[in-house]
This record gives sequence, structure tokens and C-alpha cells, in this order.
Amino acid sequence: MLGLMTARDVKKVVLAYSGGLDTSVILRWLQKEYGCEVVTFTADLGQGEELEPARRKAEMFGVKEIFVEDLRETFVKDFVFPMFRANALYEGQYLLGTSIARPLIAQRQIEIAKMVGADAVAHGATGKGNDQVRFELGYYALQPDIKVIAPWREWDLTSRTKLLAFAEENQIPVTKDKRGEAPFSVDANLLHSSSEGKILEDPALAPDEIVFQRTISPENAPDIATEIAIDFHEGDPVALNGVTLSPAELLTRLNKLGHDNGIGRLDLVENRFVGMKSRGIYETPGGTILLTAHRSIESITLDREAMHLKDSLMPRYAEIIYNGFWFSPERHMLQALIDTSQKSVTGRVRLKLYKGNVICVGRESPNSLYDTRVVTFEDDEGAYNQVDAQGFIKLNALRLRLGGQIGRTGGTP
Amino acid sequence: MLGLMTARDVKKVVLAYSGGLDTSVILRWLQKEYGCEVVTFTADLGQGEELEPARRKAEMFGVKEIFVEDLRETFVKDFVFPMFRANALYEGQYLLGTSIARPLIAQRQIEIAKMVGADAVAHGATGKGNDQVRFELGYYALQPDIKVIAPWREWDLTSRTKLLAFAEENQIPVTKDKRGEAPFSVDANLLHSSSEGKILEDPALAPDEIVFQRTISPENAPDIATEIAIDFHEGDPVALNGVTLSPAELLTRLNKLGHDNGIGRLDLVENRFVGMKSRGIYETPGGTILLTAHRSIESITLDREAMHLKDSLMPRYAEIIYNGFWFSPERHMLQALIDTSQKSVTGRVRLKLYKGNVICVGRESPNSLYDTRVVTFEDDEGAYNQVDAQGFIKLNALRLRLGGQIGRTGGTP
Amino acid sequence: MLGLMTARDVKKVVLAYSGGLDTSVILRWLQKEYGCEVVTFTADLGQGEELEPARRKAEMFGVKEIFVEDLRETFVKDFVFPMFRANALYEGQYLLGTSIARPLIAQRQIEIAKMVGADAVAHGATGKGNDQVRFELGYYALQPDIKVIAPWREWDLTSRTKLLAFAEENQIPVTKDKRGEAPFSVDANLLHSSSEGKILEDPALAPDEIVFQRTISPENAPDIATEIAIDFHEGDPVALNGVTLSPAELLTRLNKLGHDNGIGRLDLVENRFVGMKSRGIYETPGGTILLTAHRSIESITLDREAMHLKDSLMPRYAEIIYNGFWFSPERHMLQALIDTSQKSVTGRVRLKLYKGNVICVGRESPNSLYDTRVVTFEDDEGAYNQVDAQGFIKLNALRLRLGGQIGRTGGTP
Amino acid sequence: MLGLMTARDVKKVVLAYSGGLDTSVILRWLQKEYGCEVVTFTADLGQGEELEPARRKAEMFGVKEIFVEDLRETFVKDFVFPMFRANALYEGQYLLGTSIARPLIAQRQIEIAKMVGADAVAHGATGKGNDQVRFELGYYALQPDIKVIAPWREWDLTSRTKLLAFAEENQIPVTKDKRGEAPFSVDANLLHSSSEGKILEDPALAPDEIVFQRTISPENAPDIATEIAIDFHEGDPVALNGVTLSPAELLTRLNKLGHDNGIGRLDLVENRFVGMKSRGIYETPGGTILLTAHRSIESITLDREAMHLKDSLMPRYAEIIYNGFWFSPERHMLQALIDTSQKSVTGRVRLKLYKGNVICVGRESPNSLYDTRVVTFEDDEGAYNQVDAQGFIKLNALRLRLGGQIGRTGGTP
Repeated sequence: MLGLMTARDVKKVVLAYSGGLDTSVILRWLQKEYGCEVVTFTADLGQGEELEPARRKAEMFGVKEIFVEDLRETFVKDFVFPMFRANALYEGQYLLGTSIARPLIAQRQIEIAKMVGADAVAHGATGKGNDQVRFELGYYALQPDIKVIAPWREWDLTSRTKLLAFAEENQIPVTKDKRGEAPFSVDANLLHSSSEGKILEDPALAPDEIVFQRTISPENAPDIATEIAIDFHEGDPVALNGVTLSPAELLTRLNKLGHDNGIGRLDLVENRFVGMKSRGIYETPGGTILLTAHRSIESITLDREAMHLKDSLMPRYAEIIYNGFWFSPERHMLQALIDTSQKSVTGRVRLKLYKGNVICVGRESPNSLYDTRVVTFEDDEGAYNQVDAQGFIKLNALRLRLGGQIGRTGGTP
Repeated sequence: MLGLMTARDVKKVVLAYSGGLDTSVILRWLQKEYGCEVVTFTADLGQGEELEPARRKAEMFGVKEIFVEDLRETFVKDFVFPMFRANALYEGQYLLGTSIARPLIAQRQIEIAKMVGADAVAHGATGKGNDQVRFELGYYALQPDIKVIAPWREWDLTSRTKLLAFAEENQIPVTKDKRGEAPFSVDANLLHSSSEGKILEDPALAPDEIVFQRTISPENAPDIATEIAIDFHEGDPVALNGVTLSPAELLTRLNKLGHDNGIGRLDLVENRFVGMKSRGIYETPGGTILLTAHRSIESITLDREAMHLKDSLMPRYAEIIYNGFWFSPERHMLQALIDTSQKSVTGRVRLKLYKGNVICVGRESPNSLYDTRVVTFEDDEGAYNQVDAQGFIKLNALRLRLGGQIGRTGGTP
Repeated sequence: MLGLMTARDVKKVVLAYSGGLDTSVILRWLQKEYGCEVVTFTADLGQGEELEPARRKAEMFGVKEIFVEDLRETFVKDFVFPMFRANALYEGQYLLGTSIARPLIAQRQIEIAKMVGADAVAHGATGKGNDQVRFELGYYALQPDIKVIAPWREWDLTSRTKLLAFAEENQIPVTKDKRGEAPFSVDANLLHSSSEGKILEDPALAPDEIVFQRTISPENAPDIATEIAIDFHEGDPVALNGVTLSPAELLTRLNKLGHDNGIGRLDLVENRFVGMKSRGIYETPGGTILLTAHRSIESITLDREAMHLKDSLMPRYAEIIYNGFWFSPERHMLQALIDTSQKSVTGRVRLKLYKGNVICVGRESPNSLYDTRVVTFEDDEGAYNQVDAQGFIKLNALRLRLGGQIGRTGGTP
Repeated sequence: MLGLMTARDVKKVVLAYSGGLDTSVILRWLQKEYGCEVVTFTADLGQGEELEPARRKAEMFGVKEIFVEDLRETFVKDFVFPMFRANALYEGQYLLGTSIARPLIAQRQIEIAKMVGADAVAHGATGKGNDQVRFELGYYALQPDIKVIAPWREWDLTSRTKLLAFAEENQIPVTKDKRGEAPFSVDANLLHSSSEGKILEDPALAPDEIVFQRTISPENAPDIATEIAIDFHEGDPVALNGVTLSPAELLTRLNKLGHDNGIGRLDLVENRFVGMKSRGIYETPGGTILLTAHRSIESITLDREAMHLKDSLMPRYAEIIYNGFWFSPERHMLQALIDTSQKSVTGRVRLKLYKGNVICVGRESPNSLYDTRVVTFEDDEGAYNQVDAQGFIKLNALRLRLGGQIGRTGGTP
């Protein structure tokens, strides 16, 4: 039965716990305010931080059930790659690096909640952003009667001062660099890092170079291009320079290549699901390479209408993921459509990486639909009959001519 | 009345005439085969060739009515800019440089045909490409009973040897460099140049540097970035670095900037309307800058759903133009939708151009919907109530929870 | 500045007031709870109730500013007809009769609020339905800082007993038939009536005949068909049986014709914007006739691609209106697209009305694109060249054949 | 290798043969003109004609390989039912009865061609219609190098007189009723019958009653309604009135029920793929019942966004089938999306059939998402929290309010 959620009536909660100051405060606050047992869940999604400190901190707070897990392979294989089959870009530009990580965290939190018999889950996302939506839609879709605690929407620790005071009162260690406020907020995983807030709030100003963490600047990248080859099998990348790699390994290597060549920076003002515009600085080095690579292999293996159908639905697919509806009927349906198109997307793409540029320099496939005999400017020995074009044009023009005849010239509706 | 076109029954034909070998052969062939008067029409769309030689050649062939016109401003103002309001990209990548020029040529040919009392028009596009479709759909939409002559689909000059023999027999001057075949075919206008065919036919091989005409390579571009500012008014660019410019002037300057910074190259395998894949090398220096600039000013001035609606229809709009349906009810209807969205797309974008990269470094607008008070990480003084997010999420999750309750967890359809 | 709305801090509120028990309780409750001045607004949208009793009741409650207005012509002309240009059906079936009335009421409330210097508006819609959303999105779009009071979401009169007790305590007259609860809830206007709730909640059971108010049953309709003619001008109906009528007059007559012939009943389980399914019984007699009539005149006057483009966007347009976003950029954009298509939708449609059926028996237009010479099975004298079909088919098949050649037969992706 | 089809160079051809005058003339003409062996293929798709006479006629013409097959079950199971999962309607009204039969005939012709070693196929569709496209796209998709003969586009038997003369010269029996021309042309199968041409060409005139073959008129239907129940399993109908039936049996029974109750007539002006408008009279008695039944069971079992996604793609899916692209990547992709949505579309629908009306009078499902506890007007015991609606509305309104604040009130873009 839905509803009837009396907030305070919680026995055991699974918290998505990073080990940082904010989620440590949340951990303690949950213990005090809800008087409930807290289970921590810390995942390695490739954010580039050690997880063991989080375990030790959790122990320090008396947490008995501590989950620390490396989810990088699952993340890339079951979330990132399926999404890349669609060439998904939110608002024409954003590779959805944060959006695609949230459903996996939500999924694992619910699985753990079932394992440990918890009746609630909690996350550290604020009340203004998209992440709260993504976490909670995931929770509810996977366990409809789960109780959800979103401390940032509930508590009165609404200023940095209050938060630090709470930390002090509750023996939460605050590292020196956290005493002052961070100049901007960061989220990172194996696909990307995102930076936003505070000094980045004015969209009229370019971000300072210190903001960037996953890429060097194009200016600082080598003067010599790097050439690589990526092999695809049924829509997913499987090898780099001829070496077969696991999904996470492959993305890790592409990230390094992207990093070194200044690839994958994006400075974007985007529209949040909760109704406001926000500005983010994204770095998606490997993902940016992957997008060009995937489009390139599709360009010779996908049928025209298969591609156009995919492309026409891509904005909706991207919006669904951005808004947090990964676990929804509409995403499953679109995924079925997209996956159906990928059976023949197999082959090799060669790319040149150079100071921010990803340039396709070759594509080959056993399934290539590109047929030199048909397209050639040379004599095609009858593979294509140019006379057919006349009939093709005449019938395509017929409706326009019928309109023109009664005064609707120039395609006037 | 449609139809009844007996091909040979032509009195006067308006030929789209470049002055080059191929259209000169066509000119002569029309005079001989159709025994009709030929009117030539040579337009400056910014292809970068002198037009006077075309006039002199036409005179040499005895042409009495010769039209040589500079259409650059019309081209940019009435065709390129409306298209850029849509951020149109065919198959996710191609800026439609050739596609957008054809309707204007067709339109002007029909206008001239009416002026001079011609009953036919002719073009020099081959029977395998998209351009024949674009020209002819334009002709038919603008004058449904016009007769259309497409020599490449009709004649028997099917090899280079035969073509040159015809030229020789008919006193058509052949410059030395035309004796041998060109290693690839080029189309150019103020928006772009495209190269395809022959040595470019293998998509596994990167194009040689000699192919590029409108851009230097990123490698050869300066080591220092160039920063520029573009002002938009209701969706169209109107000034560069604070200087108001006419549409063609503005695009010309952007082309120079793009050229110098190695911007706007594209190596693409695309799907033609006539059913085959083809490979093209495109250079769209100014247009590539413009696309980023326009998306950037839209990012702060367009409402979210206005943007998403536009974006979801863009692939269809691009396909319509690519396929040659500029003069069609569906294009007019989509244009009305797009133009309606652009009233507030006014403001300034600053961009950094660097070795192939176009990077937005600032956007400002009197119509900006980006509201720091709402989005801020700092205290927003009540501009946004975080508690609202809970109800928002709960109702968005309701259908997923109802599904989950009866076993359709995880958004199973 | 948005936000900062402290609910109780209201000086003057404009209430959408029907004069019935519920909104009378609301009126009194607002006076008591908010201690503010209440302005009433009662509109005739064709719901078929007298308005003067509402005025008298408002006077009785001490209301000083009372607005009673006949908005039927505006309703049909500026809301119903533009929507019908799109052939809008929500979820394939619902003609949006309730949805389209809410924006007009919201608009007029806001206009009145500006006139009388009110700082708030209030409505009587419940917290579970779509109407609260439609009213409030309209209010906020038209006046972003307006205060909105939705008593049903705020008060504690959560049962019929409490409501009646409040009425008694506050000298609100309760007619005898209102003492017991109504067996279902009704909303009506010139376009339709809707009935839902209580005895209608089980979708496995058909509604009783007493539910229907705007139509007799097909069984009770005459055994003889009625034939009518509707004239359209640029997409809108302008005359019935040759007599030019105002929009509201025309719809009123069509309602009578529909009523008498058992036309326009719909028993639907639909999906609400707030996330649940609900079941409604709708009667849209005139609108159902109009839909068939409009589609019929479009069938001969609209270009194919214009129609297909409209049709492909119709579900989105209908959803926008259903969800309450009439006053939104996306609706304005789609309306521009739709209206652009309607310039030539002019002509006469003849219909047969018979026991629930609306059957087109003829359509004629000066703008007809139907051309007997082209379509005829007889000799067309060259209007259409059948040989063109071969080239048309060959090029449409080309991509499928290229796929088949490499083993992707049968259109395998 | 494509192309190189020298028309006359045919050894053995599989003809889609009805046994009627026209295809008999074609049979003979192929033998004479092409001097090739003709294999006949006659299929029962439920058109309601005996097939044995076709066999005897073929024998009479010396045909050695004669295929006469009952394909009704395949037709309904693998073509009609998958299409009905989409609620497909072309141009909002047409149930695609002819369109969906063509791919099956094409498929079987190609299978037979492979079996008997034929190098060509032939059909009797004219050069103006859609059917030639549907047949030939099917042929080419299934066997890219097949030779296709379309006699109506090739021969000179362009008038009835010439055709009859040819018949006489070639000992083709002409029944008396075929001497004069049929007043209109008919196509029929288990899903529908279609009538068009000649006396039906004027869209201003209603068809005469004699045109109708599969339905009595609503006027002549019984005065008493018939009530039926249809059971669905994963999107397809499986039982009628509790009796499990095979696909073809079920459709046959629904056709009888539809026939008797005057259900499923449609008088339509539609847009052909070949560019012209045409007028058809369709009768789809069982299909019309099925559409309402399927939509009704979906109304309680499909998630909202699943339904809206399907609905938004339905026009494109219908267009694909209408245009003849059943065997195409895009149809396969859309089918995957649609089929994914149907897993839970299981349950029973009760319908009332009455004089042309199909009225849903009840729907039930073990997978119903309709939840009385949530939707009820009565106290829902906390299943739905009305306060959530406020946050939901506030955040949905936020972008409109931000726009309104800077003068873009009323949703002005």
C-alpha cells in the first residue's frame, strides 16, 4: 500500500554514503533525528576516490552494516553502453554523465535494503537539483513502498555555518580544506566529472582552468595527434587498438586518451527537470571519443531509416534519462527499439585525437552498406539506373505540382 | 495541366550555368539536341569564382539572354539564417551547405524563365545525387508545368572521353587542367564547400590535405586562441565584435575566422535521398561557429519545452531540407514553429576559436531566463521552495509505484 | 520576485465561483480563514446553469465586487476552434472538453485580479485531479507572482459531514438534494459534459443511463438519419446548412443535433497528469460532429505531408492541453505550425447523423487537391505517367536491396 | 549484384494469380511476351472467393507449377495482430486492410520463386496505386536481385477494349458480367474490403448501398444491441465470449458480428504514397471492433508514458505500413518498441455492438493499473497525499513564472 509514510517512523535506512563531510553529517543526523539504524553504501563508480576511508568513518559512527562495492564494470556495461547506443545528448550537447550513474546507485541501495531488511533509503542530494529526482524515481520504481529520506529538504542545517556547527557538536571530523566552503561543487564517475555552483554561477564568465579535473586544456595538449582504433560489436565498443578490453577498462583507457588530448570539455547552461536553468562544466573525455566513434561506425552499417528513426527519438530518450526515468516503461520500450537497430553495428573506426578534436579518419565493417559500385562517379556497370531518378523525382514532386496548379506555389500550405 | 511533357518539344530553356566545362557542354548539347534557345543563369552564391568568364563564354556560344547575379545576401538572409534558427544538422553532423543553396538557384531560374518566357529549365546535376532532386522539386513546386531537362540522365556522354570528344567537336575550350579528370568533385558556396567522389570514395581512408579549400588544418592553425563576440537579434546573428554587419558580410567574416582556426571540417558517410550511402568531405567554417553561437544564446533565452520541442523536430526539418523539400508545406509549417520560438533569442555570445575548437566562453541577454536567485547554491531568500520538490517527485513517481505494486517493478512495461 | 508566499497574507482574492454548495463554502471559508476580501467571478461557458442565483448568493455573503460574465463566444472562438484545428484527441479518444475551458477561466480571473487590485486567486478543484493543475499553471503563466489558494488542498473539511456542518454553522443554504451526496460529479460547458467519481469508479461496469445529460442514447435516437452541411473557412466552421453563425451559436446548434442523434458519448479510462488513472463519462455531441467534419474537409484540402506532420504532433498538442499548458511556449509554437496549415482548409462537408454515427457523405472545396484527372482509373490523357512509378519504387527499394545483398533480407536492421 | 535487369531476359516467373480476367490476361501475356514459364500462386487471405477455379484455369493455360494456399491463419497471426498492437490508423482513420496483406503475398511469392527456381515475380497491380509499391518493396527486401514484372506499367493493353480483344485472341474465357466494365474496383481479404474507382471517384457524392459487401448498413442493423466479450493475452485477442479461438477464426467471427451490426464502414479521401489523393470505401467490420477492444484493454493495463510513446509513434508506424515498408528496419524497430509495451496487455473487454457503434461497457485485467484506492473521491486512507500536488504544480509552473517575470507572460515564447 502506497502512502501512509509517517516520516519519522523508520527502523533502518540505507544511506548512499561517500564518506565526505556532507554525507557524514547526514549519517549522524539520521541516527539522531530518526533514531534509526543506518546502513552505509559506498560505491566505486570511477569517481577517483578511495573507498576505505568511507568504511572507517562509517565504523567510527557505529555503523554495523557497511557496504563498499566496486560497480565500475556494471556501470559501464549495463548503463553507459546501452545509453551510448542511442548517441544520447541532452539539449544537443550533454552526455548525461551524472544522470546515468544515479539509477545504478538507486538500484543497489534498494537491493541492499532488501538484503538487510531496511525500510528506508536516504541520499545526499539537494532540493534544487535533478539528482534527488533521479534517486527517488529509481527507489520508487524498484520498491514502491520504500520510505525515502532526503535530509537536505527536511533539516534546518540550511547554511554552511550551521552544518559545521552540527559537525563539531557531533564529533564529525572536518578536514581543514572543508572549513572554508568549496568554490564549486563536483560530481564524478567513470564517465565524466561535473562542476557547478558558486563561482561558476555566472554564465557570462568562462570557468577558470582550475575547475577542470579530467582533462588538460586543448592548449596544453600535445602538438602531435594520437591515432587510435576502436572495434565495435553489435553497437558496443569491445577493443582499443586491437586489444579486447572489458567495458570499464576500455572507458578508462579512453578517458586517459581524452584527458591527454584536451577532449570532452563542455560549458553548458541547461534546463533542469525541476524547472530552472543551471550552468554546468562537464568533462567527458572518453565518452566524447566514444560518441564520434559510435556515430562513425553507424554511418556505414545502419540503414538510413533506422538511423533517422533513432535520431528522431534520441532527444526524447535523452530527456527520459536526464529526468530520472531510467527505470520506466518508456525507457525500456525505446531501448528495445534502439537495441534492435544495433545488431549489425560491428566494425572498426579509426580516430585522430588532437587538441580537443576527435576526427574520424576511417571506418570499416563486414556489414557495411556503403557500396562503391553503386555510389561511384565512375561507370557502375548498371548497378544503379540513373533513369530511375526521373520517376522518383516526378512522383515525389506530384503533390507539390498539384498544389501549384491551384495557386499554392512554392509549397504554400 | 501536368504531364504531357514531350521531352524534345522545348522552345527556350534557362540553364543554371557555371561557365565550367560540364555546363558548357550542356549548353551546347541543349542547343544541338533540343534545337532550342538557351538562356544562361550564373549566380554568385559565394562559391569564390569569378562570374564574368561565364558571361563571356555564354556570349561565345551565341546566348542572347545572359543573367549574372550576386545572390549572396539573399542566400544568407532568406535561406541560411532561417535554417540556422533550427540548429539543423542532417544525420547529427552535416550542416546542409549544399542542400540549402539549391532552392535559391531553382527559385531564381523559375523567376527568369517567367521573365524571358522560357518553357523549360535545365541543370547540370548527375542522376545519382541529391542535387537533381533538390533542383527539380524546387522547379515543380514553383511552376508545376515547367519542363525540366537533366542532361546527365538523358545523354550518352557517359564517359569522360565522350564528353571531351563532344567538347572538341563543338569548339568548347577545355583548359589543360580539365583534360585529365579532376581527382574529386567540388561544390561550394558562402556556407560551405563539399568534396566527393573518385579518390574520396573509400571511407576507410582519410582525405588528403589537398582536398581542403576553405580551412587550414587544426595542426596548422595558430597556437593562440582568437576570441570573438556575436550578437543575435530574434534568432539571427547581426553583429560581430560589436560591429553590425549584413548577413553575407557577417558569414564571410566568420568564414575567415573559421578558416584561420581550422574550424568546420567534416568527413562523413551520409545517406542520400536516392537510396545509397555516399561519402563527403565538408568544410563549413563560419557555419560551425554559428551553430555553437546560436545554441549558446538559445541556452539562456529559450524556455525548456520550447527548446525540447524544437530539438525533437530538428531531425525532420533537416531531412526535409536535405531531401529538397524547402518549398513544401511541411517546411513552411516547421519554419512557423521555429520562428515563433526565436522572438526572444537576442543577446551576445563570446566564443574562443582554437585549432578546430569553438568554445563558448560567455553568454548574456536582456531576455535571459537564467535566474541566479533561483538556481544559487547560496540562500535564495525563498525564491525556490525545496519542499515543493517532494510533491513533484511523489506525483512523478506515482505511476511507477502503482506499476511496482502489481509486480511491474523497475519500470517493466 | 517569486516565492515568499506566506499563505495567510492575502488581502483580496478572486474566486472562481459557481454559486453551488462547494464554492459557497469556499467563499465563506476564505472570508473566515484568510480574513480577506473575496471577489467572485462567475462565468457562462455554456454549462447550462443560470448565473443570477450565483450573484444573489455572493451578495448575501457580503461580496462587494461580483463579476458575472457570458464568455461563450470567446470560449468557442479563441479556445475550442483553435484546438479543433489540430483534431486533438487525448489518448486517441478524449476531445478535451474540460481541459480547454480551464485556461479561459484562469485568464479571466487574472484579468479581474488586476482590475480590482487583488493579490490572490482561488478555485474549487480538488487535490487529486487535473483541474487544479490547469487553473494554477494558467494563473502563474499569466501573473507569475500571484498567490494561489486551493482550499481543497488546505482545509480540514475532508468529509461531506464536515462540509455540511461548516455550511450550517455559516448560514450557507443547502438545498435538500445536496444534503445527500451526489452519486457522481459533473463538469459541463458548451463543448461537453463530464461525469466521474463515486458510482462511476468501477471501469468494469457500464454507466447507468441517468448519467447522460447532453445526449440521448443511440437506441432512443430517431430511426431516420439527419443530413447536415458544415462550411469551413481557413480551418474553422462558419456556417451550418448554409447559414452563417457565430462560433458559439454554431456549436450550440451542433450540440442539439448531436444530442438528438445520440452522438458523442465516451466511456474512458484515462491517465491524469498527476499520475493516476481515472474513469470519465464524456458527452461531446457537437464536438464529435465537428471532428469528423474537420478531418473530412482537410482530407481534400491539406497536402499529404502537411497532414502527416500535423497528425504526428497531435498527440503532443493534446497532451499539452490536457496537462494544463495552454499558456506555454510549446503550445504557442505548435499552434503556429497548425494554423499555418489551415489557410486552405475551406469548403463544405455534408454529414449524415444517425444513432451515434457521424458519416461523411460529401466534401467539396475550391482548394481541393483531389484531382480526378490524375487519380482516375480511366485514361488520364497523360496527367500521370505510370512509368515514373518504376523509378520511384526502384529508388525507394535501393537501401533495402543493398541490405539484402549482405544478408540483411526482409528489412532486418 | 543489383541492376543489370534486362527486362525480357526471364526464364521462370511466379505470378500472383487470382484466376480473374485481369490476371489471366497477364498470365497469357507473360507466356507470349516473355516466352517464359509461368508459375501461379493463388492464396486464400479470406477474400471470400473459391480458389479451385483458379487452379483449373491455370491448368488450362498449361501452367505446370500451381500453388494454391490457405494463408488465413498466418495473415491474421503474423501480420494483422502485430499491426493492431499499435492501434494503427493511417491518416487518423484507415485500418490498413489492403496494405497489410501485400507483404504476405510478396513473401510467399519469393519463397515459391526460391523453391521452383524462378528468377522473376509478377503482380497485377496498376501503375497508379500503392499496391505496386507494396508488392515490389517486399520482393526487393526479401530477394534483392529478383526480377519484377509489372505488366500494367509495361504493356499496351491500356483500354478495356484492348484487354478484351487480347483475351478473345488468346482463348481467355470472359464471363458475361466482365464484358462490361465493373462500376468500381474491389480488393478484399479477411480484414477488410476496399472499393474504389469509376463511380466512386467523386468525393462529393456518397457511395451507393450496392458498394458495400462486408456490412449491412447501420439503418438495416438490428434494433437490439449485441454484447460480446473479448479476451486479450499480451496484446492479442485470444477468445470471444469465453471461447478460445485461433486468430483467423476469431477475426472471422468478429467480421460476422460487425457485418450484422453495420460496423466498420469508412468513406475516405486519402493520400497515396505515389503522390495523389484517392477516394476509397472501406469495410473493416471485425477490425473496427478489435481497435476499440484493444484500446480499451490498454486503457487499464498500459502505463501512461508507455501509451503516449506508442501513440506518438503510431502515425509513423501506420505510414510505414501504408507505404509498403513492412519488411524494413524501421518497421522492425518500431515493432520491437510496441511489442515491449504489450506484455501486460491481458484481460477482458466487454463491448456493445449497435447499428454502427462499438461501445466499451467494461474492462477488467489482473494487470490493471487503475487503482480505486488512489483515484477515489472518497477518503483514500492516505494512498495519495493531496499536498504533493502543490509542489508538483509549483515546479511545473516554475519555468512559466520565470518567463512571466521578464515580460513573457501567458507562455509567450
